[in-house]
Amino acid sequence: MPPIASSRHILQPCLKPLFISFTHFTKSSLSPRKFPIPRRFFVLNPRKFSCSANAQSAVDNGGGGRSGAMSSPSVLESVEKIDVNPPKGTRDFPPEDMRLRNWLFHHFKEVSRLYGFEEVDFPVLESEALYIRKAGEEIRDQLYCFEDRGNRRVALRPELTPSLARLVMQKGKSVPLPLKWFAVGQCWRYERMTRGRRREHYQWNMDIIGVPEVTAEAEIISSIVTFFKRIGITSSDVGFKVSSRKVLQELLRRYPIPEDLFSKVCIIIDKIEKIPIDDIKKELKSTGIPEEAVEELLELLSIKSLTKLEEKLGGSVEAISDLKQLFLLAENFGYSDWIQFDASVVRGLAYYTGIVFEGFDREGKLRAICGGGRYDKLLSTFGGDDVPACGFGFGDAVIVELLKEKGLLPELSLQVENIVCALDRDLQGAAATVATVLREKGQTVDLILESKPLKWVFKRAARVNAQRLILVGNTEWQKGMVGVKILSSGEQFEIKLDELE
Amino acid sequence: MPPIASSRHILQPCLKPLFISFTHFTKSSLSPRKFPIPRRFFVLNPRKFSCSANAQSAVDNGGGGRSGAMSSPSVLESVEKIDVNPPKGTRDFPPEDMRLRNWLFHHFKEVSRLYGFEEVDFPVLESEALYIRKAGEEIRDQLYCFEDRGNRRVALRPELTPSLARLVMQKGKSVPLPLKWFAVGQCWRYERMTRGRRREHYQWNMDIIGVPEVTAEAEIISSIVTFFKRIGITSSDVGFKVSSRKVLQELLRRYPIPEDLFSKVCIIIDKIEKIPIDDIKKELKSTGIPEEAVEELLELLSIKSLTKLEEKLGGSVEAISDLKQLFLLAENFGYSDWIQFDASVVRGLAYYTGIVFEGFDREGKLRAICGGGRYDKLLSTFGGDDVPACGFGFGDAVIVELLKEKGLLPELSLQVENIVCALDRDLQGAAATVATVLREKGQTVDLILESKPLKWVFKRAARVNAQRLILVGNTEWQKGMVGVKILSSGEQFEIKLDELE
Repeated sequence: MPPIASSRHILQPCLKPLFISFTHFTKSSLSPRKFPIPRRFFVLNPRKFSCSANAQSAVDNGGGGRSGAMSSPSVLESVEKIDVNPPKGTRDFPPEDMRLRNWLFHHFKEVSRLYGFEEVDFPVLESEALYIRKAGEEIRDQLYCFEDRGNRRVALRPELTPSLARLVMQKGKSVPLPLKWFAVGQCWRYERMTRGRRREHYQWNMDIIGVPEVTAEAEIISSIVTFFKRIGITSSDVGFKVSSRKVLQELLRRYPIPEDLFSKVCIIIDKIEKIPIDDIKKELKSTGIPEEAVEELLELLSIKSLTKLEEKLGGSVEAISDLKQLFLLAENFGYSDWIQFDASVVRGLAYYTGIVFEGFDREGKLRAICGGGRYDKLLSTFGGDDVPACGFGFGDAVIVELLKEKGLLPELSLQVENIVCALDRDLQGAAATVATVLREKGQTVDLILESKPLKWVFKRAARVNAQRLILVGNTEWQKGMVGVKILSSGEQFEIKLDELE
Repeated sequence: MPPIASSRHILQPCLKPLFISFTHFTKSSLSPRKFPIPRRFFVLNPRKFSCSANAQSAVDNGGGGRSGAMSSPSVLESVEKIDVNPPKGTRDFPPEDMRLRNWLFHHFKEVSRLYGFEEVDFPVLESEALYIRKAGEEIRDQLYCFEDRGNRRVALRPELTPSLARLVMQKGKSVPLPLKWFAVGQCWRYERMTRGRRREHYQWNMDIIGVPEVTAEAEIISSIVTFFKRIGITSSDVGFKVSSRKVLQELLRRYPIPEDLFSKVCIIIDKIEKIPIDDIKKELKSTGIPEEAVEELLELLSIKSLTKLEEKLGGSVEAISDLKQLFLLAENFGYSDWIQFDASVVRGLAYYTGIVFEGFDREGKLRAICGGGRYDKLLSTFGGDDVPACGFGFGDAVIVELLKEKGLLPELSLQVENIVCALDRDLQGAAATVATVLREKGQTVDLILESKPLKWVFKRAARVNAQRLILVGNTEWQKGMVGVKILSSGEQFEIKLDELE
């Protein structure tokens, strides 16, 4: 290849400040000052200006780069700059953020694997009907729903459990119970953007389908504790508040309250820390619950000890025996110091029927970190036959806030084993061969694709945390050898390519 | 815990055939015949029928299970069964499909890592404006777009490249070039459901931003070849057709054709194998291209050798030197036998400007497996400053078809190291302790959460491919020991819990 192509190097500084649109450039503005020239290799490509059709696009281009195709807008045509940010409430994941997401998901998945759970996933786009429940949940008002081109009502999933229930129904008898499934998926809620909340987040779910006993709840809480421990969070940072919806059920049963009011009541109670208590009372009364029941209910919710709950409800109720069993199992699993009874926990989803729990930061600065519980009746709300089930959802947002608070965010950087670089343009092919040999041995290689000064290569090596620099020079290559520099020690040597490990 | 809870076991067979809705059951239908009773542990829970509020829900439930909360629909109320299938054109990923997806993605990611690429991601939901190009692409007509609650026009992303370009513009000068980024993300197209095509697929993308030289194209094709080799695909199964849009550009330049027609022409030509040649001609003519140009164009497209192309266009054109360099580099990378020149390849996206390529199965049974090329002008169509760039998209659908064809689909099964099982209800807590100890040592454990006959446990062990069965029995546990059975050999022994590795 003649030196013509070397002029392409000046393209690198072309990623100019965003506010200078290319439309500001004309031929006359194309000066070396504006496009700093690397010390080496600068030869103006004569072809750029030899072909009339191409000359214009070379200017569009800032004077560097390949002469492009005709699809580029002409210099005289003004193109309105797009919004470079992702849509409101959504995120890009540039490499540094992606590394953190991968680190988090890796732990979600490793813990699930330790517990013998199998990974599943469902469509991000689901039928809207899956989320239309009558209990007045916040989640329904926040549905990201629309009509598709086939006039179907669809929604971006706000949570994973309804899809899981759908899949369990679909599988029917073909899968032996119990199922232990986990998923890590993106969920969407159209929330007002106050409080810095986003409209999408990823959620880790673990669910046990087909086990009616409290051992299932104990197992899934254990897995969350294992996750916390792995990422450095202790029981002095985080705890679980645990209760059972059967506590409320037991109380409401003593009043003449229609059955179908139960989940509505739970949803109202879940807002207890978000809106004034008088509004909670008003809402409860408006459902038709007698005033004395409202008062007794609110009193009950303040109970923070199982003994007191037992005094209030009597020892023989199922709510009490479930909770006692759970606390006993927590001892066996070894996480007693993480959990506490708190009658105020009911969770904001309509379908829970038994034990409910949420993870909270002990400093009380953040929203719930995770939450879950038993939902034995979800399938019948979809017209299916019920199966006992429990599970949890664990978002990727609050945990990152907590890790920041505690100084526990991991330092994650790009790690590349080798940088391979040709010392001469003509050796770029040889460098490609070297890269191929190393990659076939499982070594990661950042291959330098242009002729660059060595100083530039060292800078890049530092940025990608390369361990070795492999230099392909003419004299060595003729002997089938390459130069190796260990970047941590500065040690240098020559080695035969086939001996390079 | 009293034996009451044992009745919960009969819940397991409750996942009945899907077509029998629970509404068909009444109290009188609740017979042991209908709900087969396990040989052991069947004791009817007296509480189920002692509390009036609960009796009804116990019947809903098929007679088993925990007495639920009041949220369950009454037996008399008919609940219409939801559609248990995912929305048209979308997929669930039950465990067996998820294992395949994970296997595929693992190789996508490992290859990208070998090549020193960093992972990125973007929102699934993007601004519609990102995809509105004027070239008449199929992709535009297939946008999954809608108006969100804030009256913004948004779309489920049909491809990843525009988001990548947006992020590159956003990062501006803060990132040193070149960038080597990869992503594996879900993309959506609202296609007619003929030909068994789905409306969503996952796509692996690798992109190099900031390198104007053909080494970049050579490197990304090399990474795809590496991927194929890792999963068992050879150059006799798959090849790459390679051309350059500059070939067409060179030809069209010889006629008085306006520049902005170029990408439109490419889009029409891309349909050459899908619609009759006369329709292609008609479409080309309707853009205003002279008839002789259309004929020359179609003749040019039939060229399958670089030598013939050179005869036609002359040797000094950039298209030829680019392609020659690419074929030279392919030798150095060691994948010459995978690639061939084919002038008919133009790809269906408007933004390509130089080298274009697509992976195809040599038996010609399938659609393109992957495709990519250089797109040096994409950023200016967004009002930004251009940066040289190239990349590819590789879907998760066609490759799986090919693996099936070739008998190369991997056998992937759930693998669990240990099944831990209490021999006695009272020892469930002890079993939880054993599971915790093993998990802390990094061992995967499927903990049996209910009292089950040993036969059932062995069946489950086989299903999850467990290596060991750890039995927690009373006599051993009192000595701090557990029973271990190696399932492959049948070997059995007792061991102290703290010596269990």
